[in-house]
Amino acid sequence: MGLALELAQRANALRAETFPPEARRWAITAITDMLGCALAGAQEACTGTMLHAVGGGVPGASCSLPGRAERLPPLEAALVHGTAGHALDFDDTSKSMAGHPTVVIVPALLALAEQRDASGAALLDAYIVGVEVATRIARGVNFHHYEKGWHPTATLGIFGAAAACGRLIGLEDARLANALSLCVSLAAGVKSNFGTQAKPLHAGNAARNGLLAALLAEGGFTAGADAFEHPQGFLEVFNGAGHHDATRMLDGWGAPLDLLAPGISIKKYPCVYSVHGALDAAIALHRRHALDPARIARVTVTMHRRRLLPHVQRPATSTLDAKFSLPYNVVRALISGRVGLADFEGDAFRDPIIRAVMGRIATRPHDDDSNDYGAEVEVVLADGTVLRESVSAPLGRGPETPLPVEMLRMKFEDCATRILPVEAASRVFESLQALDALPSVRRLTAMMVPPG
Amino acid sequence: MGLALELAQRANALRAETFPPEARRWAITAITDMLGCALAGAQEACTGTMLHAVGGGVPGASCSLPGRAERLPPLEAALVHGTAGHALDFDDTSKSMAGHPTVVIVPALLALAEQRDASGAALLDAYIVGVEVATRIARGVNFHHYEKGWHPTATLGIFGAAAACGRLIGLEDARLANALSLCVSLAAGVKSNFGTQAKPLHAGNAARNGLLAALLAEGGFTAGADAFEHPQGFLEVFNGAGHHDATRMLDGWGAPLDLLAPGISIKKYPCVYSVHGALDAAIALHRRHALDPARIARVTVTMHRRRLLPHVQRPATSTLDAKFSLPYNVVRALISGRVGLADFEGDAFRDPIIRAVMGRIATRPHDDDSNDYGAEVEVVLADGTVLRESVSAPLGRGPETPLPVEMLRMKFEDCATRILPVEAASRVFESLQALDALPSVRRLTAMMVPPG
Repeated sequence: MGLALELAQRANALRAETFPPEARRWAITAITDMLGCALAGAQEACTGTMLHAVGGGVPGASCSLPGRAERLPPLEAALVHGTAGHALDFDDTSKSMAGHPTVVIVPALLALAEQRDASGAALLDAYIVGVEVATRIARGVNFHHYEKGWHPTATLGIFGAAAACGRLIGLEDARLANALSLCVSLAAGVKSNFGTQAKPLHAGNAARNGLLAALLAEGGFTAGADAFEHPQGFLEVFNGAGHHDATRMLDGWGAPLDLLAPGISIKKYPCVYSVHGALDAAIALHRRHALDPARIARVTVTMHRRRLLPHVQRPATSTLDAKFSLPYNVVRALISGRVGLADFEGDAFRDPIIRAVMGRIATRPHDDDSNDYGAEVEVVLADGTVLRESVSAPLGRGPETPLPVEMLRMKFEDCATRILPVEAASRVFESLQALDALPSVRRLTAMMVPPG
Repeated sequence: MGLALELAQRANALRAETFPPEARRWAITAITDMLGCALAGAQEACTGTMLHAVGGGVPGASCSLPGRAERLPPLEAALVHGTAGHALDFDDTSKSMAGHPTVVIVPALLALAEQRDASGAALLDAYIVGVEVATRIARGVNFHHYEKGWHPTATLGIFGAAAACGRLIGLEDARLANALSLCVSLAAGVKSNFGTQAKPLHAGNAARNGLLAALLAEGGFTAGADAFEHPQGFLEVFNGAGHHDATRMLDGWGAPLDLLAPGISIKKYPCVYSVHGALDAAIALHRRHALDPARIARVTVTMHRRRLLPHVQRPATSTLDAKFSLPYNVVRALISGRVGLADFEGDAFRDPIIRAVMGRIATRPHDDDSNDYGAEVEVVLADGTVLRESVSAPLGRGPETPLPVEMLRMKFEDCATRILPVEAASRVFESLQALDALPSVRRLTAMMVPPG
């Protein structure tokens, strides 16, 4: 039996009724988070250019776009939505993939679900299957795949999008195998284009291609039975001899789901990930104590040495710089109790109250590898009081540190209210938290269209 | 300067007024031939499935499809047209690419030209630029690129499509460079899916992606300046260290054009290429002599040993088999003076007159490598008369053996009349032969729509 068929059989053997509640919880968290990112990215330049390149909106087409008034046919909707979702690079990551799973799977799936009027439960089920397929294929080729230069978000995410769409439309094994084999021929994206608008394009294009593969397979389109393991197939051509192991894809399939172990990470703050632990600690301090900036005498941040790179220790001298500046972000978190998109716009980084405290911050490296992502923030007040908070890893980093729903809501609303009124953003959030019970995904997609 | 910009500058430096007449002649030949293939492929199953997957025709959309009544937006038109054009694997090949250049470039270009109402001369100019860019990039990565498992039709053709579209819309150097860099992120297609409908999908998807890259670049979309030469870029990721040489792309650029040296090959007969030389010789015999099947005593075909593989020497026992059978095809050519699509449909291979003569055929191998593609056909008649004809290579194989226009017409009409009435097919052919003078490509595309 070819690997494509073996993967398809295992994908179809995953039964929604066996998924543990935590898997549904993580799925809802990831989908919510990603849709927030798409709303925030809806007006970014790359989204507008992409929409224009596909010819603009098509009135009456079957799919809406989160955060935009235009409608599009499903393939184009997946393309533009995926591009918007990754425009800010603020969406979740998968440890197995070394990439962003949800921004490829959800834009494909949501377009199809909206077109076919699927339920929220069906969407959730399909999403969980999509993540398992993408991350399982990833286990067979990573991390060589990533290190060689492929952009796994695209080149592995595409399989997740196809598998999720295949589940939604009920592709039987042979057709789902064809969909996965077609993905071998559509997988694309390399890292030499990072740092440009091509990166979000990778996500959008993989979403569109995964959906296309599922739709073609549904229509009976054929593909190679050995598209993965053929000497000129996915494993050998993308990874090369000695750099893949298909047994790692199949062993222990679904038990536990990759969504639960090793799981995915939510990026709570729109700045460099290395400082997220310190921001969690700083926000905890803010919540526990009324911190008057004038009374802060000294701040000391302790983190692993490898996360304290020079660019992280610099004060912010530009909007872009601010995204990497530990002093700027930690002080923001201490003073405002949050770090959001608006903190990286316009002149926010020049805020004199923040900059005054930034002059009193110091960093201290440690070398404890068991505390790789942990951080401690210590504040000494003018009267000598010492306040201290530490975290072992950023919240939302995975199953061991789940994301409190109020933090998910804070990020979602920060993102969504760039486009939607506050009440509308809140309604979308509530609706997503009860995705299982949503009779039609169209209710959700309609809520994400900004008021005319 | 990055390689993308260097390639873009050289592409833009190619001036239509300097293209030699033979280049225009070959361009017209290739475009005519490919459009014939697209007309023949318009009703193939893969074309219908693809059209259905993109949501079917869109009344009033800007592009038509050769041989179909549906209209589509440009990107989808390029996708479906490219798929149709390669459905029969009957379109031209480039020696430098080790793939099919025109079936990727023309579907992208024609869609754009129709949308923007370009002239035939602009289309021709852009096509020549597209072939030069695709084949030049090919020289830097082949034949390792092909041998490793990539399908160069798609992974190299995409650059030709983007460059051709870029020329048509007048992208300046920096934007054309972005278009080429975006192609690095969109290039896809491996050979493990050969022998299935995924192969024509490769052509269609590369056409769509090349056009998308040009449209995105036109809109100001950004991409990596070093997308080709970056350690995680096109050269290293697709080919790998030691398997590429960018100087081969640039040296001697455009002088002569790759279209003229080494040139492209037209596949005149819808059967295995190894026997095409023998078919030319057999058709020449048919034209010179009235060959009564009953009077043919013996036929001897002499060809290079490496082309006389066992599957070529088998008699045809099925429609598919007939495509590889030297005896079937040579006797067809001798008796009918042509070998066309209808000879591989239904029961054609069972024709008793043909099968009778097939029993009197023998093959004789030679080992002369200077006569690699040459062939001799000797017919001995019942009265002992010996008739003999030989060719050094199939006509249409390249600049040394240009394709006589009447042979191009024969193939085109064989293909086109599967869809169009004879007079319409003939009008399209005439219009293509005078492509330089066509004021609007829309006149051409309108002629290729079958009568309602």
